[in-house]
Amino acid sequence: MELEANNKTDLSALSDALERGMMQRATGLIADLNPAEVARLIECLPPAKRSIVWNLVDKDDDGEVLAALNDEVRTRLMEGMDLAELLVATEDMDLDDLADVVADLPESINQEVVRSLNQRDRERLEAVLSYPEDSAGGIMNPDTISVRPNVTLEVVQRYLRALETFSDNTYALFVVDRNDHYLGKLRLAMIVTSDPQALVRDVMDGSAETFTAEMPAAEVARDFQNLDLVSAPVVDENGRLLGQITIDDIVDVIQERADHDILSMAGLDEEDDIFAPVVTSAGRRAIWLGVNLATAFLAAAVVGMFEETLAQVVTLAVLMPVVASMGGVAGTQTLTLMVRGMALGRVEDSNARWLLTKEVAVGILNGFAWAAVVVLITIIFFSGWDVGLVIGAAVAINLIVAALAGFIVPLILHRMNIDPALAGGVVLTTVTDVVGFMTFLGLGTLFLT
Amino acid sequence: MELEANNKTDLSALSDALERGMMQRATGLIADLNPAEVARLIECLPPAKRSIVWNLVDKDDDGEVLAALNDEVRTRLMEGMDLAELLVATEDMDLDDLADVVADLPESINQEVVRSLNQRDRERLEAVLSYPEDSAGGIMNPDTISVRPNVTLEVVQRYLRALETFSDNTYALFVVDRNDHYLGKLRLAMIVTSDPQALVRDVMDGSAETFTAEMPAAEVARDFQNLDLVSAPVVDENGRLLGQITIDDIVDVIQERADHDILSMAGLDEEDDIFAPVVTSAGRRAIWLGVNLATAFLAAAVVGMFEETLAQVVTLAVLMPVVASMGGVAGTQTLTLMVRGMALGRVEDSNARWLLTKEVAVGILNGFAWAAVVVLITIIFFSGWDVGLVIGAAVAINLIVAALAGFIVPLILHRMNIDPALAGGVVLTTVTDVVGFMTFLGLGTLFLT
Repeated sequence: MELEANNKTDLSALSDALERGMMQRATGLIADLNPAEVARLIECLPPAKRSIVWNLVDKDDDGEVLAALNDEVRTRLMEGMDLAELLVATEDMDLDDLADVVADLPESINQEVVRSLNQRDRERLEAVLSYPEDSAGGIMNPDTISVRPNVTLEVVQRYLRALETFSDNTYALFVVDRNDHYLGKLRLAMIVTSDPQALVRDVMDGSAETFTAEMPAAEVARDFQNLDLVSAPVVDENGRLLGQITIDDIVDVIQERADHDILSMAGLDEEDDIFAPVVTSAGRRAIWLGVNLATAFLAAAVVGMFEETLAQVVTLAVLMPVVASMGGVAGTQTLTLMVRGMALGRVEDSNARWLLTKEVAVGILNGFAWAAVVVLITIIFFSGWDVGLVIGAAVAINLIVAALAGFIVPLILHRMNIDPALAGGVVLTTVTDVVGFMTFLGLGTLFLT
Repeated sequence: MELEANNKTDLSALSDALERGMMQRATGLIADLNPAEVARLIECLPPAKRSIVWNLVDKDDDGEVLAALNDEVRTRLMEGMDLAELLVATEDMDLDDLADVVADLPESINQEVVRSLNQRDRERLEAVLSYPEDSAGGIMNPDTISVRPNVTLEVVQRYLRALETFSDNTYALFVVDRNDHYLGKLRLAMIVTSDPQALVRDVMDGSAETFTAEMPAAEVARDFQNLDLVSAPVVDENGRLLGQITIDDIVDVIQERADHDILSMAGLDEEDDIFAPVVTSAGRRAIWLGVNLATAFLAAAVVGMFEETLAQVVTLAVLMPVVASMGGVAGTQTLTLMVRGMALGRVEDSNARWLLTKEVAVGILNGFAWAAVVVLITIIFFSGWDVGLVIGAAVAINLIVAALAGFIVPLILHRMNIDPALAGGVVLTTVTDVVGFMTFLGLGTLFLT
């Protein structure tokens, strides 16, 4: 990991220009960047500077910059735009980007934008909006170039030369019959390398991967990765071509899924803006702190059951965080592997038992190994043999329980339709805290009082 | 997140066929998959079944399956292959994949494989191997199709038709002069949409993004994302064309970086095999448990300083996990945002102060809000006003310290060239544990004894 020199220079230079009120220089800096880079830059600025920069963006780029922004930042910027500006910005947007943007607009403005489209685009936009955002239909672009099977490549190429616009995202044409039923994929590479007199039907790839609109985006992404696809057709249940998914959409899916997995482990949301106002951020994070407070008091209540023991053997109070902490760390390791394995489709019924056996075996090995170390350290630095043996036993038991919990908790949460990446950590540490305190103080009560 | 139906069916069916010894059925199932899917499937199997499946893979696919496997799994499978098999498997590999594989082979075999290449491929392979794995040079493929600027597109197309092999990963040709100096990029889309009589020099994109071989792969990935690239040339310091990077390489970079960030937070490595033998896994994770044990005993030593206080006011022992836990959670939230922001190049000098102010403000807001809740709960369920106020103050202080630490710790680690994703959590919780125990028990000593 490193703070990147590239972006850094742009951002520092821009911040600097803004600080000094050198607006012409700032405009120049922004004009040198492409829209996605401008979007990244805006996301890296505190809110006050964002609207200044936004106003310096070339109006022709507005649409593309908006499309590339994080949902929350985009929504805020759009709140400051009037209808006329919004209509200009959304005019030339790709329909899949437009679908993202429209979803964030207030209903009334939303309708105006949709009304500004021609009949065909309106229907297509509505098609995209009718599917969940994380499905193949939700990420597809309804703009495709389709050709018939019974023409020659020469005719296809003449047709392509005559097209007014040819999107940068075109890597393949799609072959359809007169009713728009998808028949096959014709990669540009096939057009340039095959005999111009060959028929489309003989050159097209009729067995190329297709996706139905309802398929989850995560599965589509996995297939793109496994098959090294750059574009693929999306069809409805009757096999009619609805649109295409291209690799840039997939890269976004992969990036967002990764952000989600990392951030939700700390109770954060991937669409949250790190420069959001203090009160907004504090409110969001407060929920997570509240959940954790409840579990912390639960653990405290467990400790409270042993108040008499603690009064007699104060060393137990001193050492009890060690037992809980080791369990938490070991359990988090297993949990992280499970959450990631489940997200990538690598953990399932047929290998689950093998994994469980393995994780428990790892727990037993590390449990006994570290128990021995804990016993030694305790005896040397903290207390006598008796306390040492009690804490050793508690550490061993807690590490084994941690492995079990790290394995089972995400599976149960998944079955309950709760995201294990989000809730797994808090449930797991509750288990390891409670079990850790209970065994340590329980054994202490039995053998030391 | 969901356990995916697709992969699931393949894996269950295969496991089932293997259990029952139905080898013909297993072979059929494997033959239906493409090499990358076979690789995923092998990674999802326990080691004993892996070699069985590996032997059922069509020999023609061996190379591609090996290339798609995770480093550790690949190394194990290759240990079971003899030289002849390895030479067959690596025969038709793309040079960038071959570079990955060769890096994992023992030196003697490695040399045999390199010797089996023709002079040109050998030089190119050595070029790839001479760059770090996480640089543009390390992920590039030296195979490109290059053309001269002064020919017509018709000639180019005739040349392409005459080529024996045309890689699926070809999205653009690269225009070079007679000394292999890179001049521009000629996308296939331009070839099919432009006038066949046009000259390459007039149609090529001379301003397309180029990458130097030393550029870090993470930066290349960011540019690919920002510019929606599917392929880009890699050049040396003199501007000579060395190879190309294609989007599939970038998807791997993004995926690996995400895996790294998620797994290293739990002290795990993205190239570790989740089905590795118990002893191997236990050993790896033991290191992390050891680091945490040291910090846990450090926290215990802090608690030990207040043994007398604890003996007098046992409720402090009961409640002290609450203070530490709240600090840990709040600090982890800030830390996670920072680690992710730094990895994506969004946090740097010019916005760092703004972020720090914000995080501390969030810490103060949540600190006081939750302190109030903690005071109430303590008084109602655990103890009196005096203990309630002490724990409230400790929670407020620890949440503010946590925000500071969550911000500063990753920056310091980064400056020390230590990966904040790996070490951040353990350093942070050490800080929040120590500060939490110290303030709570310290205030307790002052006001309650």
